[in-house]
Amino acid sequence: MALIGKLVVCGVGLIGGSFALALRRAGAVGRIVGMGRSADSLARAVELGVIDEAATGWATALDGADLVLLAAPVGQMDALMAAMAPHLNPDTVVTDAGSTKRDVIEAIYRHLDAHLANVVPAHPIAGAEKSGVDAAFPTLYEGRKVVVTPLPENAASAVERVRAAWAACGAVLSEMSPADHDRVFAAVSHLPHLLAFGLVHDLAGRANAELLFSYAASGFRDFTRIAGSHPEMWRDICMANRQALLGELDQYLAELAFLRALLLSGDAAGLEQLFDEARRARNAWAEQQTNIVTE
Amino acid sequence: MALIGKLVVCGVGLIGGSFALALRRAGAVGRIVGMGRSADSLARAVELGVIDEAATGWATALDGADLVLLAAPVGQMDALMAAMAPHLNPDTVVTDAGSTKRDVIEAIYRHLDAHLANVVPAHPIAGAEKSGVDAAFPTLYEGRKVVVTPLPENAASAVERVRAAWAACGAVLSEMSPADHDRVFAAVSHLPHLLAFGLVHDLAGRANAELLFSYAASGFRDFTRIAGSHPEMWRDICMANRQALLGELDQYLAELAFLRALLLSGDAAGLEQLFDEARRARNAWAEQQTNIVTE
Repeated sequence: MALIGKLVVCGVGLIGGSFALALRRAGAVGRIVGMGRSADSLARAVELGVIDEAATGWATALDGADLVLLAAPVGQMDALMAAMAPHLNPDTVVTDAGSTKRDVIEAIYRHLDAHLANVVPAHPIAGAEKSGVDAAFPTLYEGRKVVVTPLPENAASAVERVRAAWAACGAVLSEMSPADHDRVFAAVSHLPHLLAFGLVHDLAGRANAELLFSYAASGFRDFTRIAGSHPEMWRDICMANRQALLGELDQYLAELAFLRALLLSGDAAGLEQLFDEARRARNAWAEQQTNIVTE
Repeated sequence: MALIGKLVVCGVGLIGGSFALALRRAGAVGRIVGMGRSADSLARAVELGVIDEAATGWATALDGADLVLLAAPVGQMDALMAAMAPHLNPDTVVTDAGSTKRDVIEAIYRHLDAHLANVVPAHPIAGAEKSGVDAAFPTLYEGRKVVVTPLPENAASAVERVRAAWAACGAVLSEMSPADHDRVFAAVSHLPHLLAFGLVHDLAGRANAELLFSYAASGFRDFTRIAGSHPEMWRDICMANRQALLGELDQYLAELAFLRALLLSGDAAGLEQLFDEARRARNAWAEQQTNIVTE
């Protein structure tokens, strides 16, 4: 018997679609119903075999649902939860794939307060540079981390069901508080995205942009790869996590002020020491990352 | 008959070693002599077949040399040119592989002023993250750009010889003024390196560095790949080009101040527009880069 009889995926793109494909491949799911803003995209998801059917509304979608994954940009979570609340069965477990957690949890308390035992926030650490259901693939989560940030009100059985679903996708589970989660990802994910978007935007606005880009090489390519990420998704993440992100940005600005002072004073030894410390830390990290899959 | 009878490579690492291997593979060189700071490294280069012999001094190295490539970090160029000047034959053509050009050219005027017709500055746009002769390979320059920044005093035949050598390595040649070169690469190469070193250094110094790094994923990996670059080489580049680099850093700080204002004021539409412009520019660039080889 399947772990999940009926699964509802709201937002069938790279993240939601890959979750569906992974659970199907693991034999962990019976029927998969998709919800989303775009009928074309849902039709494509049916055509690709990612979902069994596209639901026309929350009432039918949620009827008899065992698990719901909300995989839409975090800016939509509030409206989604408001819309689904009236149709949600007490036994249905709900989780999300949002890259920020405190804002999603605020929406949960606002709209799903009658279901707090069964609404378990989580965040799969998997790339989203290429978006859309065509980019989904069943092994996206193999060996990747999924951070669960349970609510105090969560039933242990609901947390376990969410963990088991992600484990069936091949993911490695961990738990964190929502505040810690948002601070950690502001530093290692949200800030680098902001910096990469900023550099490309800066250069693209120059009078000699074409000349500059013509000499950009593979260092530039990798540094700016995440500037190809989805603007709406990253707008939502930056807005949702802007307190922590502003804190990280300010700390980074202090680092750049230090680097600027080293350059201005011609402190070659200071620069080399900083570069050397960074290289050691970066290489030590990279050596531990044997199982990172290209996003 | 080979294009180059006797080639001298000073600094037989990734750049110099790959130049030697590429010319050898193209049948464009007779004998290859290596010079360098480390006898061990030169012995390894002989063992790997990258050079035919390690020279013990400039007098023997330069005796009968047709072409000399200086492929040491740019901070060593001044001392290298001072040392080689007394032994340089009038007919020998000299070039370099320095990532900055104005400082190398200053050293040329300082020490090789009797040879200006035959000393042709150049810069191969090829990666140097992995350094050392063991990282060298003969196809490093295939389809990569090499920028020649000729001096007004250069003989056309010397420029042609340098261009022909790089063309034999499979490189695509272009020309630029030294000042333009240094400004362009401050923007598309030196600044991204500084930013990546800075981010890793910032995070590595935190009390919770281990936690942060444990949640860093493939976006972080690519963004910080160039923070694994050679500290001494990048110290020299940053010092040699610090005027242009400071200009680029200040422009980027203005971009970050703008991003900070968008975040602080909660301007979601402004953020999305900036991200969207960056993504369009980045994707348009990436689509033209079909021939970039991973560094």
